[in-house]
Amino acid sequence: MVIILKIGGGKGVTDNLDNILKDVSTIDEKIIIVHGANHEMKEISQKLGNPEKIVKSPSGYSSRFTDEKTLEIFMMVYCGIANKRIVTKLQKLGINALGLSGMDGKLLEGRRKDRVKVVEGDKVKMLRGNYTGTVENVNTDLLNTLLEKGYTPVICPPAISFEGDGINTDNDRIVAAIAGALKAEKIVSLFEAPGLLKDYTDESTLIKKIEKNDIMSMLEHAKGRMKKKILHAKEAFDKGAGKIYFGDARIEKPLTSALEGNGTVIG
Amino acid sequence: MVIILKIGGGKGVTDNLDNILKDVSTIDEKIIIVHGANHEMKEISQKLGNPEKIVKSPSGYSSRFTDEKTLEIFMMVYCGIANKRIVTKLQKLGINALGLSGMDGKLLEGRRKDRVKVVEGDKVKMLRGNYTGTVENVNTDLLNTLLEKGYTPVICPPAISFEGDGINTDNDRIVAAIAGALKAEKIVSLFEAPGLLKDYTDESTLIKKIEKNDIMSMLEHAKGRMKKKILHAKEAFDKGAGKIYFGDARIEKPLTSALEGNGTVIG
Repeated sequence: MVIILKIGGGKGVTDNLDNILKDVSTIDEKIIIVHGANHEMKEISQKLGNPEKIVKSPSGYSSRFTDEKTLEIFMMVYCGIANKRIVTKLQKLGINALGLSGMDGKLLEGRRKDRVKVVEGDKVKMLRGNYTGTVENVNTDLLNTLLEKGYTPVICPPAISFEGDGINTDNDRIVAAIAGALKAEKIVSLFEAPGLLKDYTDESTLIKKIEKNDIMSMLEHAKGRMKKKILHAKEAFDKGAGKIYFGDARIEKPLTSALEGNGTVIG
Repeated sequence: MVIILKIGGGKGVTDNLDNILKDVSTIDEKIIIVHGANHEMKEISQKLGNPEKIVKSPSGYSSRFTDEKTLEIFMMVYCGIANKRIVTKLQKLGINALGLSGMDGKLLEGRRKDRVKVVEGDKVKMLRGNYTGTVENVNTDLLNTLLEKGYTPVICPPAISFEGDGINTDNDRIVAAIAGALKAEKIVSLFEAPGLLKDYTDESTLIKKIEKNDIMSMLEHAKGRMKKKILHAKEAFDKGAGKIYFGDARIEKPLTSALEGNGTVIG
């Protein structure tokens, strides 16, 4: 049995990383960690004079445009800082962590979307040179080999395109892809909220339990990123995942608490 | 049989990376790559407002002092940019490369030297908070598993201390440690010179062949970094390595050419 643990990239999450990883080290099950670094990505991009390029799609969605320079900084922050920080912290706790990006050993392979339609003013333009994409294949043999040998994989984007380019991908979709490929029974996703909220401005409106079949009806409660989380949870279930636990990353024992059902449990 | 290939971190080396890796992709033997990123480390440290701290030991040697901030930038540049750049370029060439730092899976474990004696003016001081060290253990099981499964390991520092801290280590010593642990028959080291030179200002004074037993006598020809290369070559032989090839990284087929004996062959 394996738990897929998603650790978000928000500031409140990173600030509590020591508690999260200490909690990880108390769990008996094998764990695969997938982590973000969104907050630090913004900070370091600014410092290096390459602020985020946010573009708007014709259907109204905002997203980050990932050009070559941005991809390079992305790799610095995700693969260089955030990934290795988790690896060393786990090593200090006696967990033999091993960090990989989705590019290493073609761990996460997919299709690059090198052109995106964007709205600028009242014009629709086609932007080229984009390095984002969607994961289609997971190298389960590599993951299983590492797990069998006692390593704890610590995974981050970029993934790799079929042509060998790094591609920025959504972390929740990486989790869905890995959980599906390994038929993982438990996914735990930790972020800066107690779980899924009926009213996202009010943390007391936590939804404790959602049946797998009701998940799409939850979209009405979800705003922004949370909407995506619901859609990707649906994707994970469709691919064969067992249960999904949404939990608060900012508390003392975030993983244990989520698994005990103190956040939102779906499934 | 496995070749340990060291790719230096000088600008002239990085500028010719495409040729080096294309050449790597034509070789039938299994290859383990160990790479540097020294030139980019200097550039990005400057950009981030954290220039290199060069300290001088009482015996007159200059070295880089690696504090916590420097180690973080080191990981960004080595693990984030340089390592993943080699991985993607190899993937594009059809080689299933997999990048690891020495911390991942305790690939390279050793002793941290957290205090260093430095000379400032005419005073000798003890500086604490240093993150450098020496590799003592190589996780050969991990390397052999990856090689057997068809992956090409792409390795960079930091290594990891026995306490779980990242430690900056000399790349030539990493090569010596890995070569010794795997009893590698061939080490190829590519850098910005045609090989070992009698007169380091004159590239026509290349030394073509050195007998293993004569290696220490070569110290008289060596200057600076080259002196260290000789000492670490000696270390590699003492640990059980076969032959060492020093070669020019700046030419069209650097690896093939070095293996054909066009640089300096020791052994």
